[in-house]
Amino acid sequence: MRVTPEAMWVNGRAAEQVSVLDRALHYGDGLFETIGCLEGSPRLFDLHLQRLSEGCGRLGFALHHIEAVRREVPALAFGARRAIVKVLLTRGAAAARAYALTGEEQQMRILLRYSWPQPAASAEGVRVRIAALRLGENPALAGLKHCNRLEQVLARREWSDPSIAEALMFSSSGALISGTMSNVFLVHRSTVLTPSLERCGVAGVMRESVLRLARDAGIDTQVRPVAAEDLEQAQELFLTNALSGIRPVCELSGRRWAVGALTRRLQGLLAPLLSPGATLGGDAHG
Amino acid sequence: MRVTPEAMWVNGRAAEQVSVLDRALHYGDGLFETIGCLEGSPRLFDLHLQRLSEGCGRLGFALHHIEAVRREVPALAFGARRAIVKVLLTRGAAAARAYALTGEEQQMRILLRYSWPQPAASAEGVRVRIAALRLGENPALAGLKHCNRLEQVLARREWSDPSIAEALMFSSSGALISGTMSNVFLVHRSTVLTPSLERCGVAGVMRESVLRLARDAGIDTQVRPVAAEDLEQAQELFLTNALSGIRPVCELSGRRWAVGALTRRLQGLLAPLLSPGATLGGDAHG
Repeated sequence: MRVTPEAMWVNGRAAEQVSVLDRALHYGDGLFETIGCLEGSPRLFDLHLQRLSEGCGRLGFALHHIEAVRREVPALAFGARRAIVKVLLTRGAAAARAYALTGEEQQMRILLRYSWPQPAASAEGVRVRIAALRLGENPALAGLKHCNRLEQVLARREWSDPSIAEALMFSSSGALISGTMSNVFLVHRSTVLTPSLERCGVAGVMRESVLRLARDAGIDTQVRPVAAEDLEQAQELFLTNALSGIRPVCELSGRRWAVGALTRRLQGLLAPLLSPGATLGGDAHG
Repeated sequence: MRVTPEAMWVNGRAAEQVSVLDRALHYGDGLFETIGCLEGSPRLFDLHLQRLSEGCGRLGFALHHIEAVRREVPALAFGARRAIVKVLLTRGAAAARAYALTGEEQQMRILLRYSWPQPAASAEGVRVRIAALRLGENPALAGLKHCNRLEQVLARREWSDPSIAEALMFSSSGALISGTMSNVFLVHRSTVLTPSLERCGVAGVMRESVLRLARDAGIDTQVRPVAAEDLEQAQELFLTNALSGIRPVCELSGRRWAVGALTRRLQGLLAPLLSPGATLGGDAHG
């Protein structure tokens, strides 16, 4: 099904094109965020902006676009009951011919608004597979939502069965990391466990929200390297993503689960946060 | 110094912009080649087209742009004594919002022509450093000149001293792989050695040309994993790249070399191939 944006802005103005010299086009030299907006209000916005800022710092982007993003996302979502706003920050048009920067690059800010249909209820959970492709490991890029995503593109090409919602990905050294477009959580007895992302993977804003909510509710959480054996021993398994919240996994490569009690409890804790106008507690997260 | 193209073509027509939806912009979902052209003739063109075709196969791009590239690169370089043509193939505008392909994507072909100044003579060799950033390992992408190049961008940001020409990069598992924009060769006694690129790195067309020339000349060659100790024991060291041919390394992190005999011999063997109208022998490479 073809999906095209309802609106496109480049540096704050309606535009549909960018320079063929943009370094994101040539090198994936950029960062993005995909933000769910309800009643014009961007959900988990502070976490999105925080990750974007951290990405700017690590890639050496100036921070002056962050304030514009803070203003423009709600402006672009204004009036829509449900909308997705994708934000793309690029290094801008190359001022030279190779990887080196000249200092003359003018970073670009692209915002795209898409419709956001009410999701089909998946109370019983989603079916998941294991990706054959493994994620390369690079601490310099780990955690960021940067624009080098060929691994995810290739992993997503591994299946076409529409009843499979996602594939879990391992790292080149054999650790479970995430889905192609989601983070993964395991329940071991009464502990909620999610892979550490120091070597690869994207540190999702929904992952962070679920971890904070679980800690605040007194649920034991662990963020650590997760092995294939940990996955085999999981009593519950769920995925998180900025748009879809918590999705229980009901089947992984033939193994089946009913939706577990801790997953249900976390979904319940999360529900208010996913409503219009909700804000996640800051560092105090009381 | 600002460097901008003299000509830009998109799908065979003069154009300076592409869609903000292009998947290369969002995911680095594309491939490129940087081709030196002399007297309108693209150098090592068959090797460039071969790598581009292999990339299309591995990323799942249709091959129909290859013939257009074969026609357009000489057309764009026509009349120029020296020119660089950069070819960028992208997956085209996203027809949906995430990594999955719909089959409706229309791949795009971008050609940029740059002037190619006569290089300053570097008979005495170039100074090189070791990059702190290590390359992630992914056999699915290894060898290709794809558009996920943030590792190279970040490694190139590690130094600004203009007297340093390049940085050597190791993989996450500790093997020497390449420079940020060149391949690397070591001489051990009478053997010419270059790292195997099964896990990361770009299989350069000049690397391939030098390997073929050396074999044809009866020089012992090895393509294998290369460790830091191999580098320490190198009696000669040189870099290759499609534009600059063979560049001897005269200094690496304080250690110095005179330009070695085998490096000189390979430069001599290579010289005719770098002239206008030369072609590299095919599989028979007699």
